[in-house]
Parts: sequence; structure tokens; C-alpha cells
Amino acid sequence: MSSVRLFSTGGTIAKKYDEISGELVFDGKHIQKILTQGRCTLDVKITPLMLKDSLDMNEVDRDTILNECKDNLDSTILITHGTDTMVESAKKLSSIKEKTIVLTGAMIPYAFKNSDAVFNLAFALSTVQTLSHGIYISMNGQNFRWDNVQKNKKEGTFEKLI
Amino acid sequence: MSSVRLFSTGGTIAKKYDEISGELVFDGKHIQKILTQGRCTLDVKITPLMLKDSLDMNEVDRDTILNECKDNLDSTILITHGTDTMVESAKKLSSIKEKTIVLTGAMIPYAFKNSDAVFNLAFALSTVQTLSHGIYISMNGQNFRWDNVQKNKKEGTFEKLI
Amino acid sequence: MSSVRLFSTGGTIAKKYDEISGELVFDGKHIQKILTQGRCTLDVKITPLMLKDSLDMNEVDRDTILNECKDNLDSTILITHGTDTMVESAKKLSSIKEKTIVLTGAMIPYAFKNSDAVFNLAFALSTVQTLSHGIYISMNGQNFRWDNVQKNKKEGTFEKLI
Amino acid sequence: MSSVRLFSTGGTIAKKYDEISGELVFDGKHIQKILTQGRCTLDVKITPLMLKDSLDMNEVDRDTILNECKDNLDSTILITHGTDTMVESAKKLSSIKEKTIVLTGAMIPYAFKNSDAVFNLAFALSTVQTLSHGIYISMNGQNFRWDNVQKNKKEGTFEKLI
Repeated sequence: MSSVRLFSTGGTIAKKYDEISGELVFDGKHIQKILTQGRCTLDVKITPLMLKDSLDMNEVDRDTILNECKDNLDSTILITHGTDTMVESAKKLSSIKEKTIVLTGAMIPYAFKNSDAVFNLAFALSTVQTLSHGIYISMNGQNFRWDNVQKNKKEGTFEKLI
Repeated sequence: MSSVRLFSTGGTIAKKYDEISGELVFDGKHIQKILTQGRCTLDVKITPLMLKDSLDMNEVDRDTILNECKDNLDSTILITHGTDTMVESAKKLSSIKEKTIVLTGAMIPYAFKNSDAVFNLAFALSTVQTLSHGIYISMNGQNFRWDNVQKNKKEGTFEKLI
Repeated sequence: MSSVRLFSTGGTIAKKYDEISGELVFDGKHIQKILTQGRCTLDVKITPLMLKDSLDMNEVDRDTILNECKDNLDSTILITHGTDTMVESAKKLSSIKEKTIVLTGAMIPYAFKNSDAVFNLAFALSTVQTLSHGIYISMNGQNFRWDNVQKNKKEGTFEKLI
Repeated sequence: MSSVRLFSTGGTIAKKYDEISGELVFDGKHIQKILTQGRCTLDVKITPLMLKDSLDMNEVDRDTILNECKDNLDSTILITHGTDTMVESAKKLSSIKEKTIVLTGAMIPYAFKNSDAVFNLAFALSTVQTLSHGIYISMNGQNFRWDNVQKNKKEGTFEKLI
């Protein structure tokens, strides 16, 4: 049976509300909740790498992601990631040639009623199983190659460069 | 820009609660609601074919689906469908060779808090854009070929025959 | 510390979706889920009496409710009940003079995203603690005396007779 | 027909997620959304006074609330308010003797799946219609007099002083 490796790194998708502090905080269980809601029977092996806003990621963090992707035996890897520097991390991974690596995330945290988290994670979960080797970003119902995608910060959507 | 044709046929995914009758009824707007929640920017051309429980579908209904798939100019077609006879409809479509056709649905209607509708539709939306020509069922985070899938009615999940 | 007795009898408020049968079924845990979501610290003593659509209730059922209300030591009693015969059950209880008894329910089951269950139960939970002895129906943000209320079946709302 | 005046002042109950900024912001429509979900037919006259975290309220803000409560012709007034200084505002209003004024709010914004906003607002909406003149805080399924309540910041709940 096929399986998928999932590296979670934090980002908007992972946020929940802490009622004591009144702040958005990270929820380490968000991926499992989404897979359960989706009645997913695929073998998704979840490995938390970090819980960070992608604007707070530095080169050490991106090296960590790169090395985990390289070292991992799985050839189909899904990465949940903040949207702000998702393109940058995808570029960082572009040296990896023999794997299918897909990055996804959300504009609205899973904990909100109107979140796009379930949609994006599910969409990307198919992408990582079906596309040939390469580095992709899956957002807004579309699959983008790492070298032809940008975040439109005004619209809050991803789009092709050309 | 690429696009996807979506034929909706009803099924569990499309049900909502009618508070006057106290019955589950069909909601003709469920697909658009899911795409909006997913912040989908892909061009999804929705064509409602019917609103039926799949157990109520007869050969005339399946002929309608078959003919619409054949006649339509789009080569990537997503079909939302009740789960009970989804495999039967997939088999019916297997004579079509030059298109990618994906069937999906839900075990729990979109209107429920714990629905798998968003997950399944989003997952299938990537499948239909990425897999080569053929007839597929996308459920439970997995893509099944039409001739190697069955519904496990006890578990409420889809699984391979072999 | 004050407390409230809650008799649950079923009705629309208690329904959830059974994904195997495709039917709406009763969820014995709906009251506790609502109280938890409401972060309720009041001592609500839940006693399930039955799980029935109110259209299926007969005189034996109503006698059960009446006797439980009479025999119970608590003088503040909240009853969750189907809306179709809620007025009939309220009338049945009108012989009880020394207690505050409030009936409530929902037009849309708790399991649906757009349910009025939390609103109604919370509203009624205040009513039962604040109104003087008598039999009341709490629905649609209003408290009705048992002898001046009817269900408008066309609108799906409760209203005064005069 | 009876009616209730509702002054909204902001607070946690009113927050939603802004997907462009990634911040929690105020949603001016949260009260109407809750009343609609509750299928409320009561005449609730909503008057927005401000949109503030209650920690950011100053004496000018509290004077505004006090004067609005005094000047308004309605004698049943519901105030939605941040929880952190709700007790302080209630105290400020205690000079008003001939009205029933109820303050409520939420620990988790309405926009979140697990919010207590609907529960609290509905509960308070009954309180304001049923209790005699006085100033009250309605939270956690309980009604507190203004001079016998405190927020337990560690638990995120309201409790009596004695």
C-alpha cells in the first residue's frame, strides 16, 4: 500500500485560539483532525518539523526542511507551511530531483468555520500521489511548479508568474 | 488557463436539512459553497445533471451521465455522485478512453459539521487535473482505478479489490 | 450553588447523521456537547427520558414526562423536546404549580453547521433559572407561556396565540 | 411586542480572521449572524457603540456606554463586551436603577468552530427579558449580579465573589 510522508512546519493552517491569552497559537493536532474529518484511509506518516510562522523562518529552518526531505526514504512528501514564504522554501528544495514534494497551507486557520485548510490539504494530498517528480505548490485548487508561482499578497491567492 | 468540467448528480454530498419538513433534501448550491470556502481560483464549470440518491439512479440516468461525458468538449471531468452506486457508474463510463474522469462524493453531507465533503471534492479536484486518461474514483484520500475498487458498506470506505 | 435538572426526550435537536445507514439518528451526547461548547459551569443534571421524534410520542410518553417532573426534587426543570408536539407536552405539564419548567428544542439538529440548537438550549437555560413558577416554551429568542403559544408550521417558528 | 436594545462594544465575541493581514479583526456583523442562526424572532435593536478590546477601553468609553444606557428609552438593554473589563463596566452602570442591563461576551470569537459566542448571547438574551431591574453579567450558563462576580483569568470563567 502506498503512503505519504507529511512534514508539518506550522503556518496559518496550524493556528487555533487560546482563550486564556486571547492569542492565536499553534495546534499540534491540526493535521490529524483534518485527516480524520476526511475519513482518510491513506497511510499518512506525520512528522512535525517545527511550528513557525513562515515569516519567522530563517535559513537554518529551511536547511532543516531541505535535509529532512533529502534524508527521508519516502519519495512522496507533503509539507504544510505558512503561505508568506512558501515559494522561497519551494525554491530551496528545487535541488531535489528524484522525489515529488508538494507544499500547501491555508489563508485561514483550520480552527475557523470558513477555513480553507481542509480543502488545501486534501487537494495537495492527491497532488503528491499523482504528479511526477518535482517541487510543487498546491493552493487555490491549482498545482503550481516551484519556478512559476508567486503569492499575490493583495488577493491572498497564488498565481503563475507567466 | 486550464479548467475542469464538474457534473453534479446529487448523492449524500449534496444534502441539507429542510427545517419545515424535517427531511434531508438536495442543496443545489453545495458545490459552489465548497469551492468558495476553498478559495478556489481554478475555472470549474459546474453543470448539474440531476439531484438523485445513487440508489435511485437507473440505466437512463447512467446513460445521461455517459452521454454528457462523451459529448462534452472538456477532457477533464469531475463527477459528484452518491457513494452506493459510484462504482457502477464508473464502470459504465469505462468505454471512454480519451478523457480523465473522476468520481467523488461524501459519506456525510456538506451541511454537517463533521462532513467529509470538502476533503473529498478538493482531493478529487487535484486528481482530475493530474492523472492521465482513465476513469477513477477518489475517496478516503486515495485514487482508485474504476476496475479495482469497491465500497466497503460496513466501514463506509472505499478499498481496492486486490 | 444552584442547579438545573435537564430531561432530554429526543426531537430534532438530538439528531446526527449515520454515515453507514444514510439516516438521521439520535445522538445521546448532544446536550453535553452543547454545554461544553458554551463553557457552562452551571450544575446541569442531565437525565435522558427517551429519544423520540415528538410526532411519535404517545400519551404514555407524556405521562412519563409528567411523572418525572412531578417526582423530581428539583424545582427548575429544562426539557429538550421535538417541536411538533412541544405545545401539547407543555399543556400536559400545566397541572404542576410549584416548579419552573421550560421546554425547548431546535428546528435544525445540533450536528448541522447552521443549527439553532445551541442558541435555543442556552436561551432556555437562562429562562429556567430566572422565571417564576410556571410552564414555558422558549424558542426563537422568546419565552412563551404554555397557554399562549403555537407552532407556525409554515414558518417553522413559535408565536403567541393572541 | 417586547423588544431588546443591544449595544455592541467589541470584545473577543466580535473577532474574525483577516486572511490578508493574518490578524484577528472586528466583524461588525457578528450579532446579526448569531441572531439569524438562532432563528430569533424577537425584536433586537442593535446599536454599535464601539469596536474595542475591553482592555483598551478607557473612562471615556465607559462614560459613553453609561450615557447611552441612561439616555436610551428601552428598559431592557443587552451589552456585548470584552470579558477582561466586563466587571468594571458593570460596576460603572450600577447607578442605573430602573432598567435591566445585562453584559455578556465570549472567550472564543464567533468565527471559531468551538466558540461560546452563540451560547452566551442567547443565554443573556433571555436574562435581559426575565430578570428584574439591575445590572448583571451572564456568562458560563449563569447570571451574576454586578457586585458579586469576578473573572477567573486562569480558568477563563466567571464566578461569584462569595
